[in-house]
Amino acid sequence: MSPAPADHPAVTGGVHSPRGVFLCFEGGDGSGKSTQSRALRDRLEAAGHTVLLTFEPGDTVVGQRVRQIVLDPATGELAHRTEALLYAADKAEHVERLVRPALERGEIVITDRYVDSAIAYQGAGRALSAEDVERVNRWATADLRPHLTVVLDLEPEHGLGRFEARDRIEGESPAFHQRVREAFLGMAAADPEHYLVLDARAPAEEITALVAARVESLLDGSARA
Amino acid sequence: MSPAPADHPAVTGGVHSPRGVFLCFEGGDGSGKSTQSRALRDRLEAAGHTVLLTFEPGDTVVGQRVRQIVLDPATGELAHRTEALLYAADKAEHVERLVRPALERGEIVITDRYVDSAIAYQGAGRALSAEDVERVNRWATADLRPHLTVVLDLEPEHGLGRFEARDRIEGESPAFHQRVREAFLGMAAADPEHYLVLDARAPAEEITALVAARVESLLDGSARA
Repeated sequence: MSPAPADHPAVTGGVHSPRGVFLCFEGGDGSGKSTQSRALRDRLEAAGHTVLLTFEPGDTVVGQRVRQIVLDPATGELAHRTEALLYAADKAEHVERLVRPALERGEIVITDRYVDSAIAYQGAGRALSAEDVERVNRWATADLRPHLTVVLDLEPEHGLGRFEARDRIEGESPAFHQRVREAFLGMAAADPEHYLVLDARAPAEEITALVAARVESLLDGSARA
Repeated sequence: MSPAPADHPAVTGGVHSPRGVFLCFEGGDGSGKSTQSRALRDRLEAAGHTVLLTFEPGDTVVGQRVRQIVLDPATGELAHRTEALLYAADKAEHVERLVRPALERGEIVITDRYVDSAIAYQGAGRALSAEDVERVNRWATADLRPHLTVVLDLEPEHGLGRFEARDRIEGESPAFHQRVREAFLGMAAADPEHYLVLDARAPAEEITALVAARVESLLDGSARA
């Protein structure tokens, strides 16, 4: 189906070498990640690909329970390391139960949020070292990395303006969300081959077309490899 | 009250330097950890010390919810990294909410299980690298280490014979519990200054007396420092 591009195996340092293609959407709340990931899924399915559309945190039984703890306002103030480790546990379960099996079946996996969200929200956003948070999350995911991460970039005020804060994370300060945004942009700038940064304020159809073009060239490259 | 012995601050590498004394009981299920930790608490309180008796996993609000996920048979098979990260999240919350504040108030903290249990159960017991599990847990606890860990050593068959397996962990194979036992003994052998290994089959009063003697010498040492 969609073999992994030879120059960037989906698993680095791992034992397995999944055959599928792993795609990720990142960005602040309200940047349109779920709309865009659904639109990409529809396009790829229309082109005959088998696609798993998934998300973090919470797209497993354990993940749902972890998500309840983390996002429930009743939890009160959570120690920063506790929060980071709960999200990492959700990622471990997500990769092991859903993402890796689908990649091993040769499918295309699209995830709404992944390790970069952990680095941005728990590392840059909180008082934790982004390096430490990355190390924990690389371990949680056995260093499985996306072939392409699409960052839907948005000034925090635009994203937050779309609705009232719904949970503990969205209720953070504008400075927190600004650090999160800069963390996403920094990761993308450091590795342009595996990132695509798009202005989230552009018309949705335009964003969909740009993402699809990049993904199609990725799939073509892997088919030629 | 009970200042930390100067040669082994309760926090290594951390910013804070708690003044209290941090004690831990480790060992397999059925080795008598809770009996012995209560007996030690009673002795120390009778001698005029302020003592916090606590346990892992689960002695915080978040920890209780994490413990429910990990130990509930309904959870089914949990990915090993998920389990390790959930336990680490419990530890992070436990240290931040209970252990460190009590140490900073100058109290004696006795915990029933700590980082060594993670290394033994998720590292040696599972297919994970003990080194990786230790690194995650040192980060979770900001490298806060006990002044003394008492290992109540027991052949797995003796401990398990005390009752039927009550949860997912106790239902593991004898080989699993044997690896766990060897992990505890290995950690103790590598650092005799901070460990006391006792035969859990000895009469309870005898064990209590041996633990108390070692703790009293630790407290005397810290009072002289």
